[in-house]
Amino acid sequence: MNEHEIARLVKATVSKMYGEDKPEGLSDMTLDVARKLIRKVEDKAAEMGLSVVVAVSNRAARPVAVECMDDSYIVSYDVAVKKAFTVVAIKMSTKELKPLCQPGAPLYGIELTNDGQIVIFGGGVPLKVSGQVIGGLGVSGGTEEQDTYLAEYGASVFEEELSCQ
Amino acid sequence: MNEHEIARLVKATVSKMYGEDKPEGLSDMTLDVARKLIRKVEDKAAEMGLSVVVAVSNRAARPVAVECMDDSYIVSYDVAVKKAFTVVAIKMSTKELKPLCQPGAPLYGIELTNDGQIVIFGGGVPLKVSGQVIGGLGVSGGTEEQDTYLAEYGASVFEEELSCQ
Amino acid sequence: MNEHEIARLVKATVSKMYGEDKPEGLSDMTLDVARKLIRKVEDKAAEMGLSVVVAVSNRAARPVAVECMDDSYIVSYDVAVKKAFTVVAIKMSTKELKPLCQPGAPLYGIELTNDGQIVIFGGGVPLKVSGQVIGGLGVSGGTEEQDTYLAEYGASVFEEELSCQ
Amino acid sequence: MNEHEIARLVKATVSKMYGEDKPEGLSDMTLDVARKLIRKVEDKAAEMGLSVVVAVSNRAARPVAVECMDDSYIVSYDVAVKKAFTVVAIKMSTKELKPLCQPGAPLYGIELTNDGQIVIFGGGVPLKVSGQVIGGLGVSGGTEEQDTYLAEYGASVFEEELSCQ
Repeated sequence: MNEHEIARLVKATVSKMYGEDKPEGLSDMTLDVARKLIRKVEDKAAEMGLSVVVAVSNRAARPVAVECMDDSYIVSYDVAVKKAFTVVAIKMSTKELKPLCQPGAPLYGIELTNDGQIVIFGGGVPLKVSGQVIGGLGVSGGTEEQDTYLAEYGASVFEEELSCQ
Repeated sequence: MNEHEIARLVKATVSKMYGEDKPEGLSDMTLDVARKLIRKVEDKAAEMGLSVVVAVSNRAARPVAVECMDDSYIVSYDVAVKKAFTVVAIKMSTKELKPLCQPGAPLYGIELTNDGQIVIFGGGVPLKVSGQVIGGLGVSGGTEEQDTYLAEYGASVFEEELSCQ
Repeated sequence: MNEHEIARLVKATVSKMYGEDKPEGLSDMTLDVARKLIRKVEDKAAEMGLSVVVAVSNRAARPVAVECMDDSYIVSYDVAVKKAFTVVAIKMSTKELKPLCQPGAPLYGIELTNDGQIVIFGGGVPLKVSGQVIGGLGVSGGTEEQDTYLAEYGASVFEEELSCQ
Repeated sequence: MNEHEIARLVKATVSKMYGEDKPEGLSDMTLDVARKLIRKVEDKAAEMGLSVVVAVSNRAARPVAVECMDDSYIVSYDVAVKKAFTVVAIKMSTKELKPLCQPGAPLYGIELTNDGQIVIFGGGVPLKVSGQVIGGLGVSGGTEEQDTYLAEYGASVFEEELSCQ
């Protein structure tokens, strides 16, 4: 019985004792959750008439799953994977990061510091459970606004449906 | 109606005219087929007690989908993605490529020619339809023999079940 | 109270109930443990008349601490940091990895797959708690045998003195 | 007795002969001083409720020691190490460098010249003895202002307490 399993058991017991039935959350991204999240974002992109690349990373900012919808941009693979890296590595969305990286702003030039892995425009969001970043979502293929919309949509689906699995 | 659909229709018509009933095959990897293929390989890996990374590329040697089974090696993401690149880029399995890259052999040093994207050990296979390479499969996470076995298993599943979709 | 704290508390309680007083182990490398481990390795290197670079990574294969003894080789910084990456990413020592990467061997060429981060000669060891890799140690500055000796010495100090903090 | 110790002794003797009582300073960063300096900066960061990465380089702009406080940003390792490089390589703080790198300014684009090693926002300071740069300090993990504050704090501790060791 490892630490995770013990924690899971204790939380379940404590929840029961206190009448709480809110299920425990993910402590790190899993492939199963990543897949479900990617599919949700793709379905929404299809509704919008878009072909996007969707990437999900874990709490170590390493990729867990990536999918390229048919006919998505070649450029989008790297962009989506790196958005998913960025948001975990710096613990904020790429939309929030963007203004901080403009000429004259505090982090201007940060995109050059991590071997080209930092993306500074919208479409990436950290995925949180109880305030902790446990993974990241990166979307690329539409306009910046569309990618941002899809990433935020994904984050809300994650929080509402997937984070407690 | 896009170019692909037109080509598909024409091929179907021509086949009918000539009385051929050989089903038409994929002319390029799709996300749908990549996903199914990845899942088959993961199921087999799980049966073998392995956690692997599985990557599928298209006929342009670009990634279509990548999945990292929970607890797979960190090193395996790059390896699997690059195996899927290699086999399309050079139109042979990484097992076939391997002896050609040893010191003194014809392609010794080729792994240095494509920005570190060429993998020269087993676990990658090209995916073919009517003799044409239409994608690639890369597996990493077991021994070289296990990865090779899984990649070849994947190729046979592709040929038997998935290549005609 | 987070998952770690809960797990820690429960294990302590369970241990008490069952009369076990073996303290719980680390689930991930901390800076405090990394510093102590590095110092131990440096002390041993000094005894041997060596100036080495010592690097410690966490379970995500990311660096936690690196120290360069005065007058160590410039080349050793990258080597030590990458040894600490390699052993977590591939879950074996670089000494074990080495024969697998020779010409003709199963992983020949793997050192080119992860953006130059894989080192294939002795001096790196994974750090384990209850069989799980929770970090890595990389040493560079002596001969391969000396680096290997120091890394293995570090791993034994970790297991005996530091892994339960 | 090594070269450094001999030089030290000679300098002390010469100073005594000429009646100078100004204590001799470091001519290059040592691991011992780097460690003490890093600890001071970490203590201050902890007081401020921050988890930062702190890096110290020598007069050759090469890293001497790096520490990542628990739970610091993944992105901060590269940033801190590169700040410590930048300030020695260009002999000014990254705060002073910043305006020179904005669009239209004299050094616009310099961050692209040294393999991605130049950071152009606050948090790095050169460490000087008698006006000579003998090392660099890079801090990353807070806002630009916080990192700048911590780096300048470190430089003042260095000058007052550590530079004469």
